[in-house]
Amino acid sequence: MRALLFDVFGTCVDWRTSVISEARERGLPDAVADAWRAQYQPLMETVHSGGRPWVNLDVLHRIGLNRVLADLGLSMAEAERAAFTTVWHRLGPWPDTVAGLERLKRRFIVAPCSNGHIALTVNMARYAGLPWDAILGAELAHAYKPQPEVYLRSVRALGLEVGEVTMVAAHNGDLEAAAALGLGTAFVARPTEHGPGQTTDLEPAHAYDVVARDFLELADRLGA
Amino acid sequence: MRALLFDVFGTCVDWRTSVISEARERGLPDAVADAWRAQYQPLMETVHSGGRPWVNLDVLHRIGLNRVLADLGLSMAEAERAAFTTVWHRLGPWPDTVAGLERLKRRFIVAPCSNGHIALTVNMARYAGLPWDAILGAELAHAYKPQPEVYLRSVRALGLEVGEVTMVAAHNGDLEAAAALGLGTAFVARPTEHGPGQTTDLEPAHAYDVVARDFLELADRLGA
Repeated sequence: MRALLFDVFGTCVDWRTSVISEARERGLPDAVADAWRAQYQPLMETVHSGGRPWVNLDVLHRIGLNRVLADLGLSMAEAERAAFTTVWHRLGPWPDTVAGLERLKRRFIVAPCSNGHIALTVNMARYAGLPWDAILGAELAHAYKPQPEVYLRSVRALGLEVGEVTMVAAHNGDLEAAAALGLGTAFVARPTEHGPGQTTDLEPAHAYDVVARDFLELADRLGA
Repeated sequence: MRALLFDVFGTCVDWRTSVISEARERGLPDAVADAWRAQYQPLMETVHSGGRPWVNLDVLHRIGLNRVLADLGLSMAEAERAAFTTVWHRLGPWPDTVAGLERLKRRFIVAPCSNGHIALTVNMARYAGLPWDAILGAELAHAYKPQPEVYLRSVRALGLEVGEVTMVAAHNGDLEAAAALGLGTAFVARPTEHGPGQTTDLEPAHAYDVVARDFLELADRLGA
């Protein structure tokens, strides 16, 4: 194994806490965060299904925000909508993320394989202190996970074969897609990603190559 | 200004010393380094001129090595040719490069805009300790500098406008191409890139936005 690819939203960063925090600063209810994230998969589906050409997450997040504000009966000026949309560039890491990545980077290439575009992922890395070796993922393939080309384009960009790369994620669906292509799999549960009542992805659904409690245990398990 | 894009070969790393060092370990004459590099521009031209589909620098470096060995009457096994070709992933930095980049990174996004592909540039960053925020350049555009799309694709990947980005290079031709597109320009001479007898790029040929002796002076000049 030569490289680790990471899911970012939820796996590396605690998007919900960060979005709620900025929502409160803007006088918005906490419910904005979950409602906004609930728009995420359906909007990406409009790209997969071919109805929409590939656009980046800033575009999809802005459409989602407009819908959420309308649904909740909230008003917000255009300039503020634009500024709030980039909260997804300013998400804080889980407590173990940075220290774990720094250890893993000593032994392996570490890179995001996220649905975030390059600009978002670079800005987030600088904000959260994520020490990536490269920014890979959706923008290279002009597709969104779990489409196979997102994983395969990231592996090829590193000059590696799928068997030399392990996908790290807190989501079973992400790892199922990676495993089907021949990548290694590492599951790290993030049981509060969706708040205290989370019911999904609390446990690994399959026999992954590695299951770890957090990125520090992942580093232990991988000898990094 | 929000981001600095860097030429890599010659500007960040001393390719000639590194290639000579590995040539000697393989029992080859020093002349291999300059002869190999002399193949670089003509081979990239075969992509620009449309005669060859875009291929990465590993492919072009291997073709160049085959020609150099033939020209110099040297023999080398296939496996050794493949291994030596990746010497271009193992180039050491100039003495000021890493410390300068670390200072510049505190204030600006720093990324390579190199003709090296992503795998080569990631491997070199890990070898030389170059703390890039992202790996941009030729592979994103499937073209080689000084083609405009290489610079423009890198700027767009960061979500920025050309006026927010400065190109840093030791080569006048690189900066001329960047300036023509509206990027800022910073010239850092590397007067021994081609050895003690270097005659090219010893001085800035134009009034660039910044001219600095090395990356530390560049950081001083940019307040980083």
